Amino acid sequence: MRTGGFTDVLVIGAGLIGLVTAWRAAQRGLRVTIVAAETAGAASGVAAGMLTPATEAVFGEEPLMRFGALSRDRYPDFITELEDESGEPAGYRAEGTLQIAFDTDDLARLTELGELQTRLGVRAERLTSRECRKLEPMLAPSVRGGILAPDDRSVDPRMLMRALWAAADYRGVVGVRDRVSGLRVFAGRVRGARLESGGELTADQVVLAAGAWSSRIGGLPAGVVPPLRPVKGQLLRLRTPRGERPIVFRTVRGLVKGTPVYLVPRADGEIVLGATQEEMGHDTRLTAGGMWEVLRDAHALVPGVSELEIAETCVGLRPGSPDNEPLLGPTTLPGLHLATGHFRHGVLFTPATGDAMAQALAGEGLPDYARRFAATRRFEGNEGDQ
Amino acid sequence: MRTGGFTDVLVIGAGLIGLVTAWRAAQRGLRVTIVAAETAGAASGVAAGMLTPATEAVFGEEPLMRFGALSRDRYPDFITELEDESGEPAGYRAEGTLQIAFDTDDLARLTELGELQTRLGVRAERLTSRECRKLEPMLAPSVRGGILAPDDRSVDPRMLMRALWAAADYRGVVGVRDRVSGLRVFAGRVRGARLESGGELTADQVVLAAGAWSSRIGGLPAGVVPPLRPVKGQLLRLRTPRGERPIVFRTVRGLVKGTPVYLVPRADGEIVLGATQEEMGHDTRLTAGGMWEVLRDAHALVPGVSELEIAETCVGLRPGSPDNEPLLGPTTLPGLHLATGHFRHGVLFTPATGDAMAQALAGEGLPDYARRFAATRRFEGNEGDQ
Repeated sequence: MRTGGFTDVLVIGAGLIGLVTAWRAAQRGLRVTIVAAETAGAASGVAAGMLTPATEAVFGEEPLMRFGALSRDRYPDFITELEDESGEPAGYRAEGTLQIAFDTDDLARLTELGELQTRLGVRAERLTSRECRKLEPMLAPSVRGGILAPDDRSVDPRMLMRALWAAADYRGVVGVRDRVSGLRVFAGRVRGARLESGGELTADQVVLAAGAWSSRIGGLPAGVVPPLRPVKGQLLRLRTPRGERPIVFRTVRGLVKGTPVYLVPRADGEIVLGATQEEMGHDTRLTAGGMWEVLRDAHALVPGVSELEIAETCVGLRPGSPDNEPLLGPTTLPGLHLATGHFRHGVLFTPATGDAMAQALAGEGLPDYARRFAATRRFEGNEGDQ
Repeated sequence: MRTGGFTDVLVIGAGLIGLVTAWRAAQRGLRVTIVAAETAGAASGVAAGMLTPATEAVFGEEPLMRFGALSRDRYPDFITELEDESGEPAGYRAEGTLQIAFDTDDLARLTELGELQTRLGVRAERLTSRECRKLEPMLAPSVRGGILAPDDRSVDPRMLMRALWAAADYRGVVGVRDRVSGLRVFAGRVRGARLESGGELTADQVVLAAGAWSSRIGGLPAGVVPPLRPVKGQLLRLRTPRGERPIVFRTVRGLVKGTPVYLVPRADGEIVLGATQEEMGHDTRLTAGGMWEVLRDAHALVPGVSELEIAETCVGLRPGSPDNEPLLGPTTLPGLHLATGHFRHGVLFTPATGDAMAQALAGEGLPDYARRFAATRRFEGNEGDQ
């Protein structure tokens, strides 16, 4: 731990986005320090890890869908390289995603989505209810039909974080476990950060990758960072009894009377159920209503969830920008970059964001595919979060 | 801790029933040791603590209802004496219970129950839906009607246990924190117990008050202890935000499409929601289905539960005898007594059971009101649990 030292790049936040940025920047020869503290509600450790660029969540948001498809296409090489550098498994799974509909309205919405997916070149195969149940025998007989997206993947975000830490360490990234009390800004340029412990970190460039907390860092001049809304998600992790088959074999995303719900299986038999979507500010309480909603909708699609043990309940705060799109690269404050605003898509966007941020930090600007998400874009009425 | 010592009475199990037996026996001048270990699923620490002798759970079981009414009538003096001897508050509340019905079938069932209550001399006042909501404004408008039982009480079982420990201690009861590996039986008489740590406890009389585990103690001759079924209950504890009014002011018991659910408020704003009733053996897993069922039914009656934070989830195993009635007093094995089988009513039955057990341990036999529950009664096909 080198506090008080000098570094080329200081990354604030050690979620997936902060870690991938640190690792990719270090691979380019930059000296990188990453600073973070345990934060209740940090999104990465809670996320289910679906890599499904075409879902109801981005319906009608084609730029996000394209960015997602690009990032998903980078995933296989990203995982290979990461596992190679880190020596750690990253929990990547390639079974595809089954999207299903509970009632006829849900099926209509899913059908539209399937057409959009096809138009965007995403493989999407329309299935009858019977075909869905042939793939996933535990589905409720009432499921109306679905879409198989065979190219969709999933990853275990907790394993991915461990692998990214190890790879970053291998590349000489220095980790500092502390909370940032404020940025150090003088002569019109960011120079580093002050720490709650009293220390300071000096850096040429600073990357704010603190998720839903990114616009609340002290010392930010007004208007530099657009306001980020925490969008609360409540999830459950269920445990499959030893020796029993999992209740789903691949990611199952469903629409239940318009509400999305998903079941994501892990190699160890864990099933992640999620998630609510609530705009409650920085509220990380697990609520009766949140648990009930997720359990109700998961039960409607796969009644067998009832038999499973609840291993964990968790709450994450997704970082939502004013237009729900990521905020990447340089800001109007020289030296300060953003890498946040990934909302529901942080895990999917991890490889593409890491590449884009490393390029920006190396002084080459954002790549074309990320330019739309430039942190300097203007929002209607955006006065920042100061 | 006097292991290896001699005592008049050894009580195995430190739930409410074991504690009240130890305290009451010590008050009679008996030297008492109580031995217990932390046990996942122990019922007393999980129970909601309703003191409602007339509920759907005992519908048609008039002897249980009479025993419950007697025990409830003893509660006020019991609490006064206990708080006096222990110097600890026991968490007793006297707001009455509101029983409510979700649909017309539930209301029909509740009406029958109300008639039975009246016949048994329990005050029970029939209320319209509007009258129910006047008492409890957060009830769903769809609630069909209810019954107010103004004499019903509640107690916080965790506070009650703390007070009983303190009172027992005041009376010289010795507590041993260990697990019993088996009874010591020779020359046709129980002589004490062997402990997992290797020690032994010698006693003139032994009381098995180990709840759903009472028939699984090692060293029991066949046929002495009837088999006890663990009846699993899953509960949630919700937290009222500081400064807000609780969502219910008194115990609310509801029937939702035939399923009982309850909300029990505590002085500190905690609301206990329960409970499932599952016959799964000694299974203490918290399940998705259990949580969902309780949340669904509580939400149907009091939608406002959704907003509350989940403070705790818990699982308890109620001890059910072959006829669902308690097992009290001497067994066919000289020196061995039972105090278990209280099923859903352990908290309610605590004062009456303590008095009955102390009388039996003093050699005076069970009092009349408890004789029906004699541990020596025969069950059809009862071969014990060996």
